[in-house]
Amino acid sequence: MMNLDPIRVVLVATTHPGNIGAAARAMKTMGLSRLVLVEPLAFPHAEATARAAGADDLLAQAQVVDSLEAALAGCRLVFGTSARRRHLGAPILDPRQFAEQALVAVEHGQEVALLFGQERIGLTNEQLDHCHYQVQIPSNPEYGSLNLGAAVQVLTYELRMSATLRQPPAAPATPVHVPAPAEEVERFYAHLEQVLLATGFLDPANPRHLMRRLRRLFNRARPDQNEVNILRGILSSVQDPHPPPRSPQ
Amino acid sequence: MMNLDPIRVVLVATTHPGNIGAAARAMKTMGLSRLVLVEPLAFPHAEATARAAGADDLLAQAQVVDSLEAALAGCRLVFGTSARRRHLGAPILDPRQFAEQALVAVEHGQEVALLFGQERIGLTNEQLDHCHYQVQIPSNPEYGSLNLGAAVQVLTYELRMSATLRQPPAAPATPVHVPAPAEEVERFYAHLEQVLLATGFLDPANPRHLMRRLRRLFNRARPDQNEVNILRGILSSVQDPHPPPRSPQ
Repeated sequence: MMNLDPIRVVLVATTHPGNIGAAARAMKTMGLSRLVLVEPLAFPHAEATARAAGADDLLAQAQVVDSLEAALAGCRLVFGTSARRRHLGAPILDPRQFAEQALVAVEHGQEVALLFGQERIGLTNEQLDHCHYQVQIPSNPEYGSLNLGAAVQVLTYELRMSATLRQPPAAPATPVHVPAPAEEVERFYAHLEQVLLATGFLDPANPRHLMRRLRRLFNRARPDQNEVNILRGILSSVQDPHPPPRSPQ
Repeated sequence: MMNLDPIRVVLVATTHPGNIGAAARAMKTMGLSRLVLVEPLAFPHAEATARAAGADDLLAQAQVVDSLEAALAGCRLVFGTSARRRHLGAPILDPRQFAEQALVAVEHGQEVALLFGQERIGLTNEQLDHCHYQVQIPSNPEYGSLNLGAAVQVLTYELRMSATLRQPPAAPATPVHVPAPAEEVERFYAHLEQVLLATGFLDPANPRHLMRRLRRLFNRARPDQNEVNILRGILSSVQDPHPPPRSPQ
């Protein structure tokens, strides 16, 4: 998969150290590694380490700087997260459009930054003025208050998801399902019909309708050879039962 | 936008009440409202309320139940989150494919469940056997450990994002398939197991493996109510056969 290291996450003036830890964990799960902190209120901090869980290496390598300019050094494309539309703001992207643009920049060898503002107020207009795009996560208009760690999780997830989809198709995610050949399935239907006639479930005068319904059901499942064998084994066990010996009470 | 209320989030055996609160907050930001808790270790709890922030209404309305079956009552489509591939598991979807499938079911008026297992171990194989699909969030192969709240955030985000992008539904091309509710299908499995024990096909010492294979088969087919009735009728006819009178030769 594409290397996401050129995309740095910049947290500006974060007040809760636990959120820094949650952001680090979110980043690492999605394969990002570069965390930059602009004037965090408290860092390092035990709460950050606790919430980072196994991502404390990202905290140890985090760069702490005292200005947004320092945080953005070397970046050629800057995205600012924002919950609301701003007057004179940069164009707004949804998370998927953001991921596309960021990945194209990475493919072109560019450094990219994704900015998150202070928990309560978000990015200020002045901070957003450093951004080429605003990114808005779609949310409930009556309650759009994503936790900082959750917002980092969603946007880094979109980066990884989009990067995964950009790949040339790799080995399939699920083992390939190989349905049994038609003739095997036909033998199963014949066997089933025979058993249903024997048990009296099927009206011998008019077997078609029920058998069509059963075909429709099993055609949706598309049984593989092993499953056909199991189903036929069941039918044979109905024809010739070998009930287990009763266990002594 | 589409109403996401028919999609319930089911948290199974959650150990940290803070994660329940984070899940509620994540859900509410994305416009989901129905939270079901199966045997939570501690609930209600101050930590859950604290992490829920303004989403404490979801906690107040959360349904607490003592079995997965109760949690799934009425559901016609069940997704289980899983970090790893399982032997005999249901087909695997990525979050975007999950959202597509869930939204189609909602458009057809169906109830849907999304399951999350206990933090440390995830869903057990037995719990996953209730699922029509596994959902895997793509993640760093060396560190895939998403926090429970973060996983809820990613998947509910995908629901909202996909719902936002979705066109108004066209008239369905084929008659809508309405799968039977989970509890009806469970009764069928119980009935099937009973018959297979009676015929001797199922080894009473080790019934699990075969039943899992059969679940996988029928979970692919997703029988509707009429089909469940037919299947159970067949089982009853095996238990109490009424063979047709032999026609005179």
